[in-house]
Amino acid sequence: MDVRALVFDVFGTVVDWREGVSREVRRLLPGVDADAFADAWRERYAPSMDRVRRGERAWANLDTLHRESLDALLAEAGADPDEETRAEFVLAWRRLDPWPDSVEGLTRLRRRYVVATLSNGDVALLVDMAKRGGLPWDAVLSAELFGHYKPDAEVYDGAVRLLGVAPRQLMFVAAHVHDLAAARERGLRTAYVHRPQEFGPRGTPPVTDPDADLNATSLTDLAARLAGA
Amino acid sequence: MDVRALVFDVFGTVVDWREGVSREVRRLLPGVDADAFADAWRERYAPSMDRVRRGERAWANLDTLHRESLDALLAEAGADPDEETRAEFVLAWRRLDPWPDSVEGLTRLRRRYVVATLSNGDVALLVDMAKRGGLPWDAVLSAELFGHYKPDAEVYDGAVRLLGVAPRQLMFVAAHVHDLAAARERGLRTAYVHRPQEFGPRGTPPVTDPDADLNATSLTDLAARLAGA
Repeated sequence: MDVRALVFDVFGTVVDWREGVSREVRRLLPGVDADAFADAWRERYAPSMDRVRRGERAWANLDTLHRESLDALLAEAGADPDEETRAEFVLAWRRLDPWPDSVEGLTRLRRRYVVATLSNGDVALLVDMAKRGGLPWDAVLSAELFGHYKPDAEVYDGAVRLLGVAPRQLMFVAAHVHDLAAARERGLRTAYVHRPQEFGPRGTPPVTDPDADLNATSLTDLAARLAGA
Repeated sequence: MDVRALVFDVFGTVVDWREGVSREVRRLLPGVDADAFADAWRERYAPSMDRVRRGERAWANLDTLHRESLDALLAEAGADPDEETRAEFVLAWRRLDPWPDSVEGLTRLRRRYVVATLSNGDVALLVDMAKRGGLPWDAVLSAELFGHYKPDAEVYDGAVRLLGVAPRQLMFVAAHVHDLAAARERGLRTAYVHRPQEFGPRGTPPVTDPDADLNATSLTDLAARLAGA
């Protein structure tokens, strides 16, 4: 495979959003079931982007969508923290720890390939997260640059254009089969990473994606498989 | 100064375009005055972007503009290298060495600040250049993301928006006073770096920019001045 660059989904694929968000819920809203709150917040993630994707509202970046979802969840929970706490709460999505293999895996992959994000998170969010977690990106690509959220075609096409490669020279890496399917539709190569803990004990993501070019159990495993490919 | 992030002009400020391009001219077009060819190529740089900036032509990225300038220069010189050589020639602008202080200066600055490019070079060009030269950017921001070349306001405003800071929290660093003036116009802080060798023996850039917030002789000097500010 003549792969030149790898672009990564971030939430769930590179970082553990559930534990990171739960930790901030425990800190900022003690007494609430933190895991359930994190799950409920995440459940509003796709629907909030879908309203932008369907054109029902103008472009709004992920910080804005997270804040709106948070306000609705707090109202449902009967909680009313002050403005400063709410603003701090939204930053939870920047304070997510990489999975234990992510930094090492990206560091190895970066020796041979351009490695970049391709996330629905804002540029500022991704930059802060990378500095905090030591994620060694060559470039930070975001839905925000294209005014479209994944799985809109514009995001995958935009990565191809900005990185100056052919679609088949770009591999998209994600723990989510629908995201990979959308990337494949645009001609990208795909690698599935199994992240069994992403959704906590309730989640049961598939062990492999039979349609992906590669299947891996971690980013270090992906580096090893690409070295052998 | 409550500076959160630094964005950098790249050609001339962080890397030595003249020596790098001359080296490629010597390799690909032996017998030609390499420094003169590099200077002539660079002289076409601003006019080619100005045609885009004035709306006389649709957006075209810098690789495209460099290729058009190259073809015109080769015709003037009576040289007719093949397509492969011309394509290789354009890549000269990615194979530029950092000034001797750049990697160390950026590495120090990165400990305290977000450091990003803010260049008229394409994203792919900047990514390749950074990997080759070891430039430790947190993010690669480019005119290409905004469909406008510096000194259009959209580029500086775009950096403020994507990095999620107030204009006064963003410092633009450049070796070119006109670029700094345009950034100041948009509310950014500015730092001038004196690069006496940028234009070779003919060039005499000013030693300081009296309108800049900071004046430095190198990126390591800038890091020391900001640590003391």
